[in-house]
Amino acid sequence: MTVVTVSSDSLYGLDNLPYGVYSVDGSQPRVATRLGDTVVDLADLLGDEVFARPTLNAFMAQGYERWGQVRAELRERLGQEVPDEVLFPLADVTLHMPVEVADYVDFYASEHHASNLGRLFRPQNPDPLTPNWKHLPIGYHGRAGTIVPSGTDIVRPRGQRKGPDGEAPVFGPSVRLDIEAELGFVVGTGSSLGDTISVEDAERHLFGVVLFNDWSARDIQAWEYVPLGPNLGKSFASTISPWVVPLLALQEAKVPTPHQDPKPLPYLAAERPWGLDVDLEVSWNGEVVSRPPYREMYWSPAQMLAHLTVNGASTRTGDLFASGTISGPEEDTRGAFIELTWGGTEPVQVAGEPRTFLQDGDEVVLTASAPGAGGSRIGFGEARGRILAARQA
Amino acid sequence: MTVVTVSSDSLYGLDNLPYGVYSVDGSQPRVATRLGDTVVDLADLLGDEVFARPTLNAFMAQGYERWGQVRAELRERLGQEVPDEVLFPLADVTLHMPVEVADYVDFYASEHHASNLGRLFRPQNPDPLTPNWKHLPIGYHGRAGTIVPSGTDIVRPRGQRKGPDGEAPVFGPSVRLDIEAELGFVVGTGSSLGDTISVEDAERHLFGVVLFNDWSARDIQAWEYVPLGPNLGKSFASTISPWVVPLLALQEAKVPTPHQDPKPLPYLAAERPWGLDVDLEVSWNGEVVSRPPYREMYWSPAQMLAHLTVNGASTRTGDLFASGTISGPEEDTRGAFIELTWGGTEPVQVAGEPRTFLQDGDEVVLTASAPGAGGSRIGFGEARGRILAARQA
Repeated sequence: MTVVTVSSDSLYGLDNLPYGVYSVDGSQPRVATRLGDTVVDLADLLGDEVFARPTLNAFMAQGYERWGQVRAELRERLGQEVPDEVLFPLADVTLHMPVEVADYVDFYASEHHASNLGRLFRPQNPDPLTPNWKHLPIGYHGRAGTIVPSGTDIVRPRGQRKGPDGEAPVFGPSVRLDIEAELGFVVGTGSSLGDTISVEDAERHLFGVVLFNDWSARDIQAWEYVPLGPNLGKSFASTISPWVVPLLALQEAKVPTPHQDPKPLPYLAAERPWGLDVDLEVSWNGEVVSRPPYREMYWSPAQMLAHLTVNGASTRTGDLFASGTISGPEEDTRGAFIELTWGGTEPVQVAGEPRTFLQDGDEVVLTASAPGAGGSRIGFGEARGRILAARQA
Repeated sequence: MTVVTVSSDSLYGLDNLPYGVYSVDGSQPRVATRLGDTVVDLADLLGDEVFARPTLNAFMAQGYERWGQVRAELRERLGQEVPDEVLFPLADVTLHMPVEVADYVDFYASEHHASNLGRLFRPQNPDPLTPNWKHLPIGYHGRAGTIVPSGTDIVRPRGQRKGPDGEAPVFGPSVRLDIEAELGFVVGTGSSLGDTISVEDAERHLFGVVLFNDWSARDIQAWEYVPLGPNLGKSFASTISPWVVPLLALQEAKVPTPHQDPKPLPYLAAERPWGLDVDLEVSWNGEVVSRPPYREMYWSPAQMLAHLTVNGASTRTGDLFASGTISGPEEDTRGAFIELTWGGTEPVQVAGEPRTFLQDGDEVVLTASAPGAGGSRIGFGEARGRILAARQA
């Protein structure tokens, strides 16, 4: 028996207890939590087969009350001696996709990001925000099947692009490969066709939060996205962090959203719309190039979920919606390179070199932390990806 | 033992043999085929447990060669006596979702439809087609979880809309509820992340074809869709027909696509791009109001799949992509009411009444047929849906 000891400044103390899926030496993937740098097998610790599955979905489907019970039990059990057989050094395990993703929707909830992109993509328009932007959280469906866990290499996508002066589109590897630093929200329990989820009820459906890198080929996107939205510029891959931080661990991180003016329609109105005080870091080849602040996001997670279902669309365990790029008001808080380098015209320094978009071999890592209980900090693991050269035709 | 007899003019003869999932008196759903008005249980007929599943996915994942073997075996076995226990009258069974849908992409492959919508949604533009339209099959991801089988009632969606003269958006039930008559293509075997599917190989991945009604709330769509595409205007429901017609049954229905000019980029080029000579009918409260001809579609199914994967996006068994609204050049071949009634300004007569968009209680049924071998016709079942009043807030 062992008591897992964790230093008081760990991002993975008893106030965090994120959920993930691990294997060791090729074993069957199973659900675990993380305490410090130790991975704890939950099926064996708690004697519950719902954790002997390769994803969190079955556990999430048990619902909000159960999430709270398990969390309380974990906090108690992991403060005491536990059997050595349930513990594994983090360095020895492989982490997998924590969730079988059902439908994936990407929102566009940062006013700073939407304004920057509007200026870059539609410079002819006097207002960088489209007229609908402050009335509804704009979102679109993305490809669930290409969401990959941290550490998966990203093959540079090929596709069509056409410059403003080109006569016709050309085909080839993307030359404007970018990132989008986002948070992803995992729906734990869904809703039936025809029903809605109110902003008040949203929290009972939201299981947890992951880091999300929505890799974006800006040249492909710019040519394809009118009139039906992004497709191949985004669908090649998105990277998520392998640890799902329970929303129950983020109660101290709740902050009011920025003031919403005009007042949202009643189905989006909340007495106190809450965002999350999560500080992200974007590392490019080991150098931190941006620190996007989630607290700046205009639309709240609850508003996004309420909007997503207001037409009666059903939701399922494993649905994932992402926030859209997180950008703050300052230049060094922008969560996409197209903003950070202003469309590639203002390079940033990475290891002493001027850089704009991603080169083959580049690695990007998202990390984040948020306030926990009693002055602790809550860590989100990381979303890491390295760019491989495009395949030959 | 019984020999199932089918009249020579049946749409469900031995040249069709579509796949579906049925149950009878609350039994576990299983895979079946249809011969005339008889449903045939395949697990029991063929003694293969892959058909004792509630979806076609496991069978589809076995791949193209196996699809051909099973089809040949079925044609032979069903020409002879079969045990009575495997046969059920169509009227006695319940039909279910035939496929567990993975990712769903909706294309926009009809030049007539895209031109009509361009004129209606963007009248200020001199060219109704966006500059990219003839260079790539435009598509966007839709909501897989709200694809429902024929017969499912459709609750009128609520959402935001803003007229051109409105100061601010209003919230309420959609007042411009529409249909889109489409074909859906089911991916039987997928492809890995980073790989592509060529136009030549597409047919080995495409299992079959369904009817697809992409219900659309035009008022919600018009307000939300710039800049990231349709979301809540579409995500509340799409209806598919319960019988998947194998592409192997549609060899006689292959026809050249319309001439493609400009010549597509090499990854979209095919020596003989083939469309399908499928004749659809749209019934509105029992009256046929349109006959959309699939043969008019500009982009071929193989081109859509090749485009979808050219960036290295992986595909999965159960992926479904739809063609977009099928509209021919003549007014009475338009596959959406917004086109058929020119934005609601030119009502059509339905049971003697002038009608534009859908009213509560309306029922829409899509049916279709295509040439089979030896002068036979191949039927597609039906995609049926009735509009229920919006829920109260």
